[in-house]
Amino acid sequence: MKLLSFRYGEKECFGPKVKKEEAVWDVLEIQQQLEVLPSFPAQLIEGIAQGMEFVEQVRKLVEAASQSDRPEDFKHSYSEIEWLAPISRTPKNIIAIGKNYADHAKEMGAEAPENLVVFTKAPNCIVPDEATVPVHSELTDSYDYEGELAVVIGKAGKSIPKQLAYDYVFGYTIANDLTARDIQSKHQQFFLGKSLEGSCPMGPYLVTKDEIPEAQNLSIVTKVNDEVRQNGNTEDMIRRVDDIIAEVSKYVALEPGDVILTGTPAGVGKGFNPPKFLKAGDTVKVSIESIGTLVTHLS
Amino acid sequence: MKLLSFRYGEKECFGPKVKKEEAVWDVLEIQQQLEVLPSFPAQLIEGIAQGMEFVEQVRKLVEAASQSDRPEDFKHSYSEIEWLAPISRTPKNIIAIGKNYADHAKEMGAEAPENLVVFTKAPNCIVPDEATVPVHSELTDSYDYEGELAVVIGKAGKSIPKQLAYDYVFGYTIANDLTARDIQSKHQQFFLGKSLEGSCPMGPYLVTKDEIPEAQNLSIVTKVNDEVRQNGNTEDMIRRVDDIIAEVSKYVALEPGDVILTGTPAGVGKGFNPPKFLKAGDTVKVSIESIGTLVTHLS
Repeated sequence: MKLLSFRYGEKECFGPKVKKEEAVWDVLEIQQQLEVLPSFPAQLIEGIAQGMEFVEQVRKLVEAASQSDRPEDFKHSYSEIEWLAPISRTPKNIIAIGKNYADHAKEMGAEAPENLVVFTKAPNCIVPDEATVPVHSELTDSYDYEGELAVVIGKAGKSIPKQLAYDYVFGYTIANDLTARDIQSKHQQFFLGKSLEGSCPMGPYLVTKDEIPEAQNLSIVTKVNDEVRQNGNTEDMIRRVDDIIAEVSKYVALEPGDVILTGTPAGVGKGFNPPKFLKAGDTVKVSIESIGTLVTHLS
Repeated sequence: MKLLSFRYGEKECFGPKVKKEEAVWDVLEIQQQLEVLPSFPAQLIEGIAQGMEFVEQVRKLVEAASQSDRPEDFKHSYSEIEWLAPISRTPKNIIAIGKNYADHAKEMGAEAPENLVVFTKAPNCIVPDEATVPVHSELTDSYDYEGELAVVIGKAGKSIPKQLAYDYVFGYTIANDLTARDIQSKHQQFFLGKSLEGSCPMGPYLVTKDEIPEAQNLSIVTKVNDEVRQNGNTEDMIRRVDDIIAEVSKYVALEPGDVILTGTPAGVGKGFNPPKFLKAGDTVKVSIESIGTLVTHLS
């Protein structure tokens, strides 16, 4: 199921993409109008915490709407809605893994790290698909893109065994881990350079894990103005999703709605000679197989 | 005003310390019973967002209770309450400054950094005064203390000018930036080693800024089992509170309830030869002038 969060009129809503249509089911509306389920989460992040049971409830609502005498009343076409990030505010900072593809570590002039490098991004820098983000030229001259597979946690856990890691995954989305390279390096710790306003585009869809049985074999392509810059595959991660969840949760308790960015393949702007950093007017598109394409405009 | 958060019976409450008594005013109870104010924040973090106006409201409630015919009904003695951290959950990760006292940078074998070093701690590792925190011996053999002045932000802002920085401060508390040194260094970025369960004791009081007109001249003393380990003064910070707020907010928008740890003076366990790391049974006390003493037990 491809879930999306959106604003329709004044309301914040969520629901699954309508199959074969450029439209979304408004599941809160279905629940209220058709009285199919006695209770239902008002926010996507609450649903995420209920895991696959929530996904089943959404299916039930969509089925009820489809079989009703007015299914069209519960759909909004993409042209009518304002897209939001699937999760517009994570419960803690976004958790992110550094140098997790060997070719990327190399282009950054580093070895693949022996131990997991984990930094965070402020949760108030999440923006949705098709957002316009400033290049922050007053702060940085090296604003860079990093296309990444984002894992959305669905269940609280700590010291999660690697073999059970996927039980804690709700689904996947795409993130662009926008980074001010100069700030990242001159302040030693990555947090500031990774957290400028708008530095975490995320979306367009949150795809439930049942649709992505193999997260470690997805092509991931980043284009800047239609020039392919990153062309990788999640099979090349040094530390894989289950390993990351096990390792991070040894130290930090994970919560539903937490998002983990799993690192970026080679081809970031800094990796070119001369570097190809972002400039106003650029458009970045990060595409991941089975999820979709996340578009960000720079201004 | 010294504010504290506490649990009384099943309820989460907050209020100011009763002057010259080991007791707290239950301001929510006053507001509900005496009907002094039509509305009042249900949670301390909401009050913080209202700044000094909230402090005035609290004063009004306390005055009304004092002048009522049964002031004792609105007080709870410290023996009746369970202490909570003043803010038990920050809106984003706790923001922390590394190597902000020259002597501490030196004992860590480093130069005072040219640029602000900013890392984060997970917000689910906040624990209150008198908490018992494990030394995590299965994960680390070098769990260490760092007594720090914590600044509580009261107003949303970005790119805050240094001259206006104190307008964005609600008050101050004490934090112990507990750190697993081995994890901190082997993972390069500090997040994991700084975020083990219970690694951010905070409290006991949140002191409003009107009581601390000069935050840069407070003695700060850390004792382990009554042995003085850190004996510093906030006047020795390399980057001062106003400077930190201005610099961090250039990159990351601050929000009410955000907490910034301002760095630790010399005398951490790692600074001794041989190092004096924490062990089960230790008690750490961090005292800051005008705020109080934060006590943490290790198990």
